[in-house]
Amino acid sequence: MFIRNTWYVAAWSHEVESEALFARVITGIPVLLYREEGGGVVALEDRCCHRGAPLSVGRREGDCVRCMYHGLKFDSTGTCVEAPAQQRIPPQAKVRTFPLVERHRWIWIWMGDPSLADPETIPDTHWLDDPQWRSLPGYIHYDVNYLLICDNLLDFSHLPFVHPTTLGGPEDYAKVQPKVERIDGGVRITRWTLNTDAPPFAAAVKNWPGKVDRWNIYDFTIPAILRMDSGMAPVGTGAQEGARVDAAEFRGCQALTPETENSTHYFFGHPHNFAIDQPDVTRAIHQAVVDAFDEDRDIITAQQKNLALDPGFRMMPFGIDAALSHFRWAVNQRLEEEKHQMLEAVQGA
Amino acid sequence: MFIRNTWYVAAWSHEVESEALFARVITGIPVLLYREEGGGVVALEDRCCHRGAPLSVGRREGDCVRCMYHGLKFDSTGTCVEAPAQQRIPPQAKVRTFPLVERHRWIWIWMGDPSLADPETIPDTHWLDDPQWRSLPGYIHYDVNYLLICDNLLDFSHLPFVHPTTLGGPEDYAKVQPKVERIDGGVRITRWTLNTDAPPFAAAVKNWPGKVDRWNIYDFTIPAILRMDSGMAPVGTGAQEGARVDAAEFRGCQALTPETENSTHYFFGHPHNFAIDQPDVTRAIHQAVVDAFDEDRDIITAQQKNLALDPGFRMMPFGIDAALSHFRWAVNQRLEEEKHQMLEAVQGA
Amino acid sequence: MFIRNTWYVAAWSHEVESEALFARVITGIPVLLYREEGGGVVALEDRCCHRGAPLSVGRREGDCVRCMYHGLKFDSTGTCVEAPAQQRIPPQAKVRTFPLVERHRWIWIWMGDPSLADPETIPDTHWLDDPQWRSLPGYIHYDVNYLLICDNLLDFSHLPFVHPTTLGGPEDYAKVQPKVERIDGGVRITRWTLNTDAPPFAAAVKNWPGKVDRWNIYDFTIPAILRMDSGMAPVGTGAQEGARVDAAEFRGCQALTPETENSTHYFFGHPHNFAIDQPDVTRAIHQAVVDAFDEDRDIITAQQKNLALDPGFRMMPFGIDAALSHFRWAVNQRLEEEKHQMLEAVQGA
Repeated sequence: MFIRNTWYVAAWSHEVESEALFARVITGIPVLLYREEGGGVVALEDRCCHRGAPLSVGRREGDCVRCMYHGLKFDSTGTCVEAPAQQRIPPQAKVRTFPLVERHRWIWIWMGDPSLADPETIPDTHWLDDPQWRSLPGYIHYDVNYLLICDNLLDFSHLPFVHPTTLGGPEDYAKVQPKVERIDGGVRITRWTLNTDAPPFAAAVKNWPGKVDRWNIYDFTIPAILRMDSGMAPVGTGAQEGARVDAAEFRGCQALTPETENSTHYFFGHPHNFAIDQPDVTRAIHQAVVDAFDEDRDIITAQQKNLALDPGFRMMPFGIDAALSHFRWAVNQRLEEEKHQMLEAVQGA
Repeated sequence: MFIRNTWYVAAWSHEVESEALFARVITGIPVLLYREEGGGVVALEDRCCHRGAPLSVGRREGDCVRCMYHGLKFDSTGTCVEAPAQQRIPPQAKVRTFPLVERHRWIWIWMGDPSLADPETIPDTHWLDDPQWRSLPGYIHYDVNYLLICDNLLDFSHLPFVHPTTLGGPEDYAKVQPKVERIDGGVRITRWTLNTDAPPFAAAVKNWPGKVDRWNIYDFTIPAILRMDSGMAPVGTGAQEGARVDAAEFRGCQALTPETENSTHYFFGHPHNFAIDQPDVTRAIHQAVVDAFDEDRDIITAQQKNLALDPGFRMMPFGIDAALSHFRWAVNQRLEEEKHQMLEAVQGA
Repeated sequence: MFIRNTWYVAAWSHEVESEALFARVITGIPVLLYREEGGGVVALEDRCCHRGAPLSVGRREGDCVRCMYHGLKFDSTGTCVEAPAQQRIPPQAKVRTFPLVERHRWIWIWMGDPSLADPETIPDTHWLDDPQWRSLPGYIHYDVNYLLICDNLLDFSHLPFVHPTTLGGPEDYAKVQPKVERIDGGVRITRWTLNTDAPPFAAAVKNWPGKVDRWNIYDFTIPAILRMDSGMAPVGTGAQEGARVDAAEFRGCQALTPETENSTHYFFGHPHNFAIDQPDVTRAIHQAVVDAFDEDRDIITAQQKNLALDPGFRMMPFGIDAALSHFRWAVNQRLEEEKHQMLEAVQGA
């Protein structure tokens, strides 16, 4: 069961290029993405309304797609405009389309009621294509339910254990609980370390006058979008009060999109605003994130296998779970709301 | 759920040779086929009545088969005739047998009530071993439900799309609807193209005086047997009225046999009555059919995967579906009939 | 469904060595085995009580184990003794432990109520490390339910059929029914062949004055432990009355431990008391057993596949099934007993 009325990331812009037909299963529904000749991206259900064959193994004809099983042709509004040996096409011969917004290299898709799709509610991730920032596009595939990955991202204490040589840092890090606040549709986790040494990677790319103040601020919102503001500034320059003087900053953007109940698409970029003329630094940062995510995937996949052995296993909440517990609560709230709306719609009809 | 009281093709004759024990799952039931010393083929349930081990990994002993787990020996009527360390064999120690008819290189099997098995109802496929015709035996395995393949065979409009370079011909071909008629236990599809050019393959093997009349007549009957009469004759020689003067003819014979709910055996031959002294022509015709069937299998397997994502998907009927819709209706009629007969038998007992 | 209050073999001693964390699923429950610095072996549930991650991919810290997902640390009694960012550990933060006994190279585990775990009830298998006997440790994994392997072991008649060139001997062997007796928690099968020739392997390693008396005595007890006393002695030296004069003896020890409903761990050794200074003989005996077990696995796996095609298949009992029928009855009795005890415990609570 997935939240329907929300924006999911469907693809990186560069995944849907020129004439190609791009197929991806999103929240259990097969979706065909392609770019019209004018450059806009459209999304059709990747399942011909006639016998269910995937349109994505079909053929582009201008801005239309022809199913290569029996030759039905659909335009980019999903309307069947040609059927073999048939003059009159029945008006219900359509495949579903999905609202799409392409923004800052991500293609966002709305899997719910199209009339509710408001592009204003798409979270800001402009750092992904802002010329003052640099990042590389990341994608990995997980064979686990997306909520287990949310749990992982909403917990800082796993960093020194799962990522001892990558993101991790000393195990003492896990001993300080970050501040957790509810925000609209999600949770914010904040952690400050004041008057500390700059870590080696930061010392390598920037000359620091002395100690630094460091921060990590995660906004994690429905459906499963993480925007991370992290970085460091020379001590005493007012970072905690909002100033960002001579700071080295990251603005991580991550999006989890359920493929099925047991698999997930994971899109991520890790923009930084320092050393932006050094592609090696950008590549090194990206690679560090990829390495860390591989570590996460190992432990989460092992966890999912273990949970599958005993569907009755009850997780035991610890203090470190404040953020993820709140997020799971928020997700359940939304699922309940959508269930009620659907019941009302049915009763109203 | 499969029709039980009908003849299925179990194997090509040459698949069951000499001493070998040949195993095949048919409509979900494991079947052992072997040839008695007298040459006749018998079919036993491939599951020892004792502990369920497959007899097909057992040992021939004359016309008997010994289970190589515990040594029970069965004769070709399925009766246990020897059990280790036991003088008296209980009379219920039997494995099921199935009525078989070997005819024109195909071994037909009856999976239902043996008392209803009438060899007269086996469709005529004598072209498979008639000396005036030539063909090669074909077999492929599908990982889809057999009805999806029936759908495919009962639809001519997919030919130019799925088989553009093999069977297909121009896409205009799909624009003309063939004639569809109900016949006993199935459907006949007829298509004539009069006064047209002979296609390249036909021009290569035969000297045509001028234009030709071409036809395609499919008889598709329960359980899933296709007999195709196709060919061409010099224009105006009365082919459409039944004459076959100087004609180049094919008599395709195809049989689908469900293995399980999600897999199918496909037997086929494509006899032709021209160039019968040129094995190269026979091989080329056979290969063209094999290539085309590989194309079908690709799209049908993609379709099955797509349908599995949403068991609630409803196919939308188009004009081109007249034949397949009727055949599916005929199959459902027979399944209903068999259900009622079974209920009556239970109540009568 | 598995018997809970019984001793299963969890591992060979050498599988759990030095610092390593050893994971094995036993009766559907993931178990972590490791050796404390003092040398004793402990067993914890291999599933962190927090989020279910496997402890076996964690880290040894002295006699404790730290979960490498979020850093919870457990001592060898299963108590959580450290949790990141948390002073007070809730007392219910524990993982389950299992009683263990290491004896004669096998590590026995009790999956049921720990208060009932009585080491006195562990079957004697001292031949596995008695200096007067020699054997090699064996382990194979089966993808079948353990009861199908019990059936196999409790039946002598399959020997000449499944193992014609290894354990088997002439097919006449199957014609003599062994004696079957109920013993506490299982069944004993006894077979004597008096005044016969020593088989080739025995003639090769020992000088026999003439004919021999041979015996095979199996004790097969719950949960699925086979102790086999087999061998031969010079004819007329009173072997059948209990004397073992100048005998060549085997004391096979075999243990089946269910992994899941459809997979099984199989531990075995085949100690012999002759030619104990000839490692080649020990290796040859071991290899003969391994080869024979591979033959068993082939036929039992084929049987399991066949049974899976029709869950409604009813096995038909034959005379040769006396022993296995009794053992299956004994298993069902114990399962019933445990069900009643559990119901009473629930009602009493």
